[in-house]
Amino acid sequence: MAQTLSPTPLTTDPFDDDKLREECGIFGVTGVADAANFVALGLHALQHRGQEAGGIVTYDPEQGFNSARRFGLVRDNFTNQSIMDTLPGALGIGHVRYSTTGSKGNTQIRDVQPFFGEFSMGGAAIAHNGNITNADSLRRELIERGSIFQSSSDSECIIHLMARSLQTSIPERMKDALRRVEGAFSVIAMTRTKLIGVRDPLGVRPLVLGRLGEDGWALASETCALDIIGAQFVREVEPGEMVVIEHDKVASHRPFEAKRPRFCIFEHVYFSRPDSTLGGRSVYETRSAIGRELAIEAPVEADLVCPVPDSGTPAAIGYSLESGIPYAMGIIRNQYMGRTFIEPTEHIRNMGVRLKLNVNRALIRGKRVILVDDSVVRGTTSRKIKEMILDAGAAEVHFRIASPPTAWPCFYGVDTPQREKLLAATMSEEEMREHLGVDSLRFISLDGLYRAVGEAKGRDADSPQYCDACFSGEYPVAPKDQIDKGFTLKAAE
Amino acid sequence: MAQTLSPTPLTTDPFDDDKLREECGIFGVTGVADAANFVALGLHALQHRGQEAGGIVTYDPEQGFNSARRFGLVRDNFTNQSIMDTLPGALGIGHVRYSTTGSKGNTQIRDVQPFFGEFSMGGAAIAHNGNITNADSLRRELIERGSIFQSSSDSECIIHLMARSLQTSIPERMKDALRRVEGAFSVIAMTRTKLIGVRDPLGVRPLVLGRLGEDGWALASETCALDIIGAQFVREVEPGEMVVIEHDKVASHRPFEAKRPRFCIFEHVYFSRPDSTLGGRSVYETRSAIGRELAIEAPVEADLVCPVPDSGTPAAIGYSLESGIPYAMGIIRNQYMGRTFIEPTEHIRNMGVRLKLNVNRALIRGKRVILVDDSVVRGTTSRKIKEMILDAGAAEVHFRIASPPTAWPCFYGVDTPQREKLLAATMSEEEMREHLGVDSLRFISLDGLYRAVGEAKGRDADSPQYCDACFSGEYPVAPKDQIDKGFTLKAAE
Amino acid sequence: MAQTLSPTPLTTDPFDDDKLREECGIFGVTGVADAANFVALGLHALQHRGQEAGGIVTYDPEQGFNSARRFGLVRDNFTNQSIMDTLPGALGIGHVRYSTTGSKGNTQIRDVQPFFGEFSMGGAAIAHNGNITNADSLRRELIERGSIFQSSSDSECIIHLMARSLQTSIPERMKDALRRVEGAFSVIAMTRTKLIGVRDPLGVRPLVLGRLGEDGWALASETCALDIIGAQFVREVEPGEMVVIEHDKVASHRPFEAKRPRFCIFEHVYFSRPDSTLGGRSVYETRSAIGRELAIEAPVEADLVCPVPDSGTPAAIGYSLESGIPYAMGIIRNQYMGRTFIEPTEHIRNMGVRLKLNVNRALIRGKRVILVDDSVVRGTTSRKIKEMILDAGAAEVHFRIASPPTAWPCFYGVDTPQREKLLAATMSEEEMREHLGVDSLRFISLDGLYRAVGEAKGRDADSPQYCDACFSGEYPVAPKDQIDKGFTLKAAE
Amino acid sequence: MAQTLSPTPLTTDPFDDDKLREECGIFGVTGVADAANFVALGLHALQHRGQEAGGIVTYDPEQGFNSARRFGLVRDNFTNQSIMDTLPGALGIGHVRYSTTGSKGNTQIRDVQPFFGEFSMGGAAIAHNGNITNADSLRRELIERGSIFQSSSDSECIIHLMARSLQTSIPERMKDALRRVEGAFSVIAMTRTKLIGVRDPLGVRPLVLGRLGEDGWALASETCALDIIGAQFVREVEPGEMVVIEHDKVASHRPFEAKRPRFCIFEHVYFSRPDSTLGGRSVYETRSAIGRELAIEAPVEADLVCPVPDSGTPAAIGYSLESGIPYAMGIIRNQYMGRTFIEPTEHIRNMGVRLKLNVNRALIRGKRVILVDDSVVRGTTSRKIKEMILDAGAAEVHFRIASPPTAWPCFYGVDTPQREKLLAATMSEEEMREHLGVDSLRFISLDGLYRAVGEAKGRDADSPQYCDACFSGEYPVAPKDQIDKGFTLKAAE
Repeated sequence: MAQTLSPTPLTTDPFDDDKLREECGIFGVTGVADAANFVALGLHALQHRGQEAGGIVTYDPEQGFNSARRFGLVRDNFTNQSIMDTLPGALGIGHVRYSTTGSKGNTQIRDVQPFFGEFSMGGAAIAHNGNITNADSLRRELIERGSIFQSSSDSECIIHLMARSLQTSIPERMKDALRRVEGAFSVIAMTRTKLIGVRDPLGVRPLVLGRLGEDGWALASETCALDIIGAQFVREVEPGEMVVIEHDKVASHRPFEAKRPRFCIFEHVYFSRPDSTLGGRSVYETRSAIGRELAIEAPVEADLVCPVPDSGTPAAIGYSLESGIPYAMGIIRNQYMGRTFIEPTEHIRNMGVRLKLNVNRALIRGKRVILVDDSVVRGTTSRKIKEMILDAGAAEVHFRIASPPTAWPCFYGVDTPQREKLLAATMSEEEMREHLGVDSLRFISLDGLYRAVGEAKGRDADSPQYCDACFSGEYPVAPKDQIDKGFTLKAAE
Repeated sequence: MAQTLSPTPLTTDPFDDDKLREECGIFGVTGVADAANFVALGLHALQHRGQEAGGIVTYDPEQGFNSARRFGLVRDNFTNQSIMDTLPGALGIGHVRYSTTGSKGNTQIRDVQPFFGEFSMGGAAIAHNGNITNADSLRRELIERGSIFQSSSDSECIIHLMARSLQTSIPERMKDALRRVEGAFSVIAMTRTKLIGVRDPLGVRPLVLGRLGEDGWALASETCALDIIGAQFVREVEPGEMVVIEHDKVASHRPFEAKRPRFCIFEHVYFSRPDSTLGGRSVYETRSAIGRELAIEAPVEADLVCPVPDSGTPAAIGYSLESGIPYAMGIIRNQYMGRTFIEPTEHIRNMGVRLKLNVNRALIRGKRVILVDDSVVRGTTSRKIKEMILDAGAAEVHFRIASPPTAWPCFYGVDTPQREKLLAATMSEEEMREHLGVDSLRFISLDGLYRAVGEAKGRDADSPQYCDACFSGEYPVAPKDQIDKGFTLKAAE
Repeated sequence: MAQTLSPTPLTTDPFDDDKLREECGIFGVTGVADAANFVALGLHALQHRGQEAGGIVTYDPEQGFNSARRFGLVRDNFTNQSIMDTLPGALGIGHVRYSTTGSKGNTQIRDVQPFFGEFSMGGAAIAHNGNITNADSLRRELIERGSIFQSSSDSECIIHLMARSLQTSIPERMKDALRRVEGAFSVIAMTRTKLIGVRDPLGVRPLVLGRLGEDGWALASETCALDIIGAQFVREVEPGEMVVIEHDKVASHRPFEAKRPRFCIFEHVYFSRPDSTLGGRSVYETRSAIGRELAIEAPVEADLVCPVPDSGTPAAIGYSLESGIPYAMGIIRNQYMGRTFIEPTEHIRNMGVRLKLNVNRALIRGKRVILVDDSVVRGTTSRKIKEMILDAGAAEVHFRIASPPTAWPCFYGVDTPQREKLLAATMSEEEMREHLGVDSLRFISLDGLYRAVGEAKGRDADSPQYCDACFSGEYPVAPKDQIDKGFTLKAAE
Repeated sequence: MAQTLSPTPLTTDPFDDDKLREECGIFGVTGVADAANFVALGLHALQHRGQEAGGIVTYDPEQGFNSARRFGLVRDNFTNQSIMDTLPGALGIGHVRYSTTGSKGNTQIRDVQPFFGEFSMGGAAIAHNGNITNADSLRRELIERGSIFQSSSDSECIIHLMARSLQTSIPERMKDALRRVEGAFSVIAMTRTKLIGVRDPLGVRPLVLGRLGEDGWALASETCALDIIGAQFVREVEPGEMVVIEHDKVASHRPFEAKRPRFCIFEHVYFSRPDSTLGGRSVYETRSAIGRELAIEAPVEADLVCPVPDSGTPAAIGYSLESGIPYAMGIIRNQYMGRTFIEPTEHIRNMGVRLKLNVNRALIRGKRVILVDDSVVRGTTSRKIKEMILDAGAAEVHFRIASPPTAWPCFYGVDTPQREKLLAATMSEEEMREHLGVDSLRFISLDGLYRAVGEAKGRDADSPQYCDACFSGEYPVAPKDQIDKGFTLKAAE
């Protein structure tokens, strides 16, 4: 049931279609005078994880639970005094979203988290980053039992499971619910008095804990959201851990059976912000290390190393440092990009690209150029960029990609095209090179990537240290709903 | 939990506070190419029954269920092509609302009907006019069982009761649900193929059935909504009846134990539009008959009979016809009234009244004036009007009220002040006359009102033909939730 | 040059197209703490004179001149605190507009008055009700001399003429400018210290003066705008008079050669609000008197006298009083009319009419009905109403029109169709009766109308007391621009 | 006179206050089917030159001149089909603006260019980049003569001067007008058939000519606006030149007395986009050369060269290349910055900075960091950045500035603070270093800057090749209005 209440979401420009997209960022804070303003800032810092919509729920003993959910950027909604005034209280959580797998772009405002449920022992709100791989069967079961779903979001299953739990406290009901859920999830929840954070047993999606002044605590998808509010990074919530924060105390629970963690390696490659830290290390440095590794694995003689802005920048700097080939901004990004312009009727080739990117023609002319990008998904952008660079008179174009070929879709909270749309799913590296029409094309190896993220010995093939399903096709949790819909696992091919 | 998504509802002007307010209008249509446009027109004709917000749900085999819910008037929302385009299908229902008892004016868009639920046998939407007198205990019970409420509306109970029914078809689940519900209700519902209408066993709120061309059927709160779309009035849905319309056939069910009907007599006095028919008779004529009866019961020598516009007009015409005293427009209503103006800092007495009403000074000067109004609730408006008339130089002011004293709140879907705010709850007729400061004040008698609506012998005190609780304090259904909150019945006073 | 800044103006409904439309209402106030709030109320009371757009200019010694101009109703714009806060000061004027002759419905915000000009001796703002009949040649002349017009409005000529005057004070410049202007005008203007009102020598359009408390003065198109702010009516500004109000003193000037006044008789028939007074008499009473006169001139046997709401109401009451035939509301007007609905695809005859009006079927059936309307312009509405009444089963339909046949366009500030679209320009009364398909059709005579407005001897054919060009084709000021464009005067036919 | 029609302009964030701001970008195109779409793209590419508002005027033989002017970004307004549909025609010009000197931030929509005037020989629209230094006296003179100004913009003088010219063609009137104007200006104008470009005799502001397909021509502030629409760069319009483009022919006129050009050197430093070319050279390369020159002039031992993003990036890359010190992104810019957030009540130091920038803490810790910025205006940003870097644990902080000290305001179309707010106006370099609290601070020398922009022998002190008044205090055109208001020239200090 589609509602028409919502303003049209931002048109995504063609470039953005050619990236994998993290689907959510989550944030929560307790023990401050005005939680909503902190949550707004935290979500703003996490905006790269979801630009379509955002929501905030707060609790105040006098005003009860309040929420505001909006399409559009955090800065355009949660800077508005009249909105923020409706969100009083010392405890709050928030969510930014991109879109859910299969939502076909027509998200409704009722699909925007956090979700709220009133139970006999009081209300609770939850914000979920990840994807539930058995959501379809859970939803069928819940409907059979008389639950009424309000959204098309898989995450709503969690709140209905909690509503039906036989447990008598909300944290216990939440454990009950999450034990029925399969897939990848980091969840931030709140009751009238508690701020709760949980990661799935594999710890696929990130979640960190921070201290804010003397009385406050914060939970966030990334450390950059702690930085923006001046919170101190304390530690990552551990895979399989539930932290329950109340009255300035943090209690740690282990509701799930222990497993070897499989953190998403693509957070290092692209999703996380370069100024966040993962595993104690700056994401910027890791990406620079990927560039260095790539320069060692795939050297080439050239005059310039240029990033595909902005995501290729740290790897390009690393490649330049390792190779000694000068770093330069061969491609300039228009910082005002946004909604799609009406294309003039006289057709202009590559208009889409020019709107967002422009080549530094005087710089590129006659040069052998190494272009460093973070990943190749459909390959559409790479082709356009190659043409721009050649049009500008480059002598040679060499692509270096800071991740292995993306050959498998992600089912753990990342928006990926269907498998047949992934260039690497249907072509070899040489076929891709020919398809893109470049002088050379090289991806970092999977082992090289593991080394760059700090695994000196590379990937442990028997028991990989990360979730790298998008590269390897090895899914740590069976994508049950997808298999029901006909998805073929690698083993079955 | 308050959401901030909604634009601020229209400020009600001070006059409107001094009326009882019907809380809802409902409409449904099937068997037409574009149900939504018909529903929009039907709701527009019912706008007087609820001006705060409106919603439409339609079903189309390809597009499924779609809904749009908006604050504001039907004409301001459902005339927009881009909204109407989202509502395809041959089957649709809609709802306009004023506000629910106890909502304290901060309605959220999620409180706006129709409500929708997805069951294992398919979806259903319902629109409810009335009030459930045991809603609080039903809600508590449903939450205990794991239902998650999305709104603060009592009507949502019905859809949750349906979700939990053991029956296997939606009409049967609806019967199950409505048998648990106490109070007054007319409901229009829809499934993927059926349009359903139900009235409670007493038939307190109205509901009529119409024929639209050869294949179409319509259900509506009043006949004026059939007129606007050119539908033929067929009959009233009977008290306690459920009609199920499918494939151009109307099936009639009787899910409830039979009772003597008690239709709301205030629909005749004020709620229904004067061009609707009730019981085969024009509401305009009934009101004119009330005026005639009033002229017989409470004659007075005077120069002019003037209505308090617009609701007092038909009774004033009747009074004039019976008494022979000329009818005149002594008070002119500004047809552009709406949001509240900022009052100039130099205080002007009665500004509120002048904004909406102005006296025809030249006409009134020196005259003995009979003012005919439909009802007196708080009495605030009556006092202001009396002052305006005296300021204009009237020699005498006589109030004649086309209903008995309103001394009791309504709990069946009408917005009434608390009992102590009702002028007639605390004063005798003479005390009211003194309070208003008029030369005479007379209300029609309860028997007179019954005669005017067609009961030649007046009210049957043992078994009244109508619900007249607002006048008599005799509630045909015990207001259970209200009693729990401390309301004292007449018998217990 | 069309600007796209403006929201789409309200769609006019089909009925309104069949009325002559007053094009403007004007209001000004001085000597109050917060002029803007008073102006907003005054314009609200004058909303019937122009619903398309409105503007307010105020002057404050510290903040200078400020203005706000908006499309839409006064109540929707000038009730907004954030707008009103931008309009400080004790002196202010305002304007509501319908549309200017020839604007073709695409009014721009820069066409919305008041207009403002900065001169070497300070700024001035003007608001104009009327039409300049030599505007085209004035505009050409001014452009030749180097003036740059910002709007398509004829009224802008006045401010450019003022800018070029050799006089050294603003009132003198205004006299200079208005002596060059031909046509009909009532103007309210303001400088930093003065509030100014002027009427053209014939006094075609109305303008009244009121006293507000001890220090304040107000100027307004009609007395109803004095009533709303509690101001006392002092007198009408006289034809050919300029009043200059400063420091609580009113000075009267006579800048023009004296002429016999020719006030617009249609203000009595339709334009003015029934609660305004004109020439010391309530407009309501005058209209009631027209109805009485009509009953004498054109009696008919019938069962009911029904007004075409709302403008036919006072004349219908008068007709009923004189004839003794009972008055009744046979047609009910939907008070929520507004933007145009999307018509359902299954065509329904007369949908346009049903949206705004509905027949009281039960009342009308089998009756001989007299319908009283204020005027017949194109006749489209009259035909539809006749059909509605016959569909409802009326035995006979008799139209009685409270004005003579409208056979000529107005060029003095009223929006009229081209002559060939006026039903009375091409048909005799009997042809019109046949065209409308009614049992009888009668217009009041021109003499009868003059009698009803108080001229006991009727119209002075040699020197008519009113401007009645729309009925008689006798234009008191030659419509110069129109003649240049090919309009043929009666004398030349 | 302030109008309230306009939405609130975007709040500028604190960082932007600490930059000089180019005030306008202009663009025009002719000989294409749909000029407006091209103009929208061109303005989008020039958005960095003015973010507050934008306007487009087009001409179509059937529809005449049309315009749309809006607050906000080009992408948010001129991507809207319903707006673009109102702008038909093959000829169009556009303007983006920041704010005019002295406008105090309350720009009105009527201040937004292009300006339009209707003359006896037809209409013309103009878009102006620059500032008229004798605007106050021109405005006084024009008002004396009877011109009515509609805006507070100096640029409106040009259109009034044109209206009063005795010449008979628009280009000749424009020459007449511009000969009365002093200061810096690049102007793009249009008539019904001509596209016109003019630069002042010194050529202070840029203007370039491009070819679009076979029949089209474009004029733009910068070459990046040609790139975006696929136009070929032809040449710069020369200082003192007027180009008149009609029927695919470009005629060149020289209306002014010849002078030695003085192009704005700050266009190289900051205003122009790095992918534009100026004088045949990429702006990126020039900025990189400034960085190299700075590394030679002001070397320092350090571990990292970091840009202050984004404007310091090319100079930082140049500094790194020349010095051999590794380049790194020590500061990350949040790409979603926009409106100002509500600061949490618990005060957090440097919140403003953290919203836009975040330090790569893990990278910076313990390092000696060279920060390269383009300029220091008030110094407020530099202090905050220094604190962020030290908080992150940097061992040393060295500032290197890619321009000389900014000690004088610009009066030629750039928004600069008053002189006393410029850090370099009141402090020596050492005092600034101390004020900023950094280990070292060095600006490039004026000669070094001239060398970097291609003047091998540096600045010609007798007759400087560029306008460098912001550094040198030597104003090539006397700022007449400013001197009248009390500004003291360097010679007079």
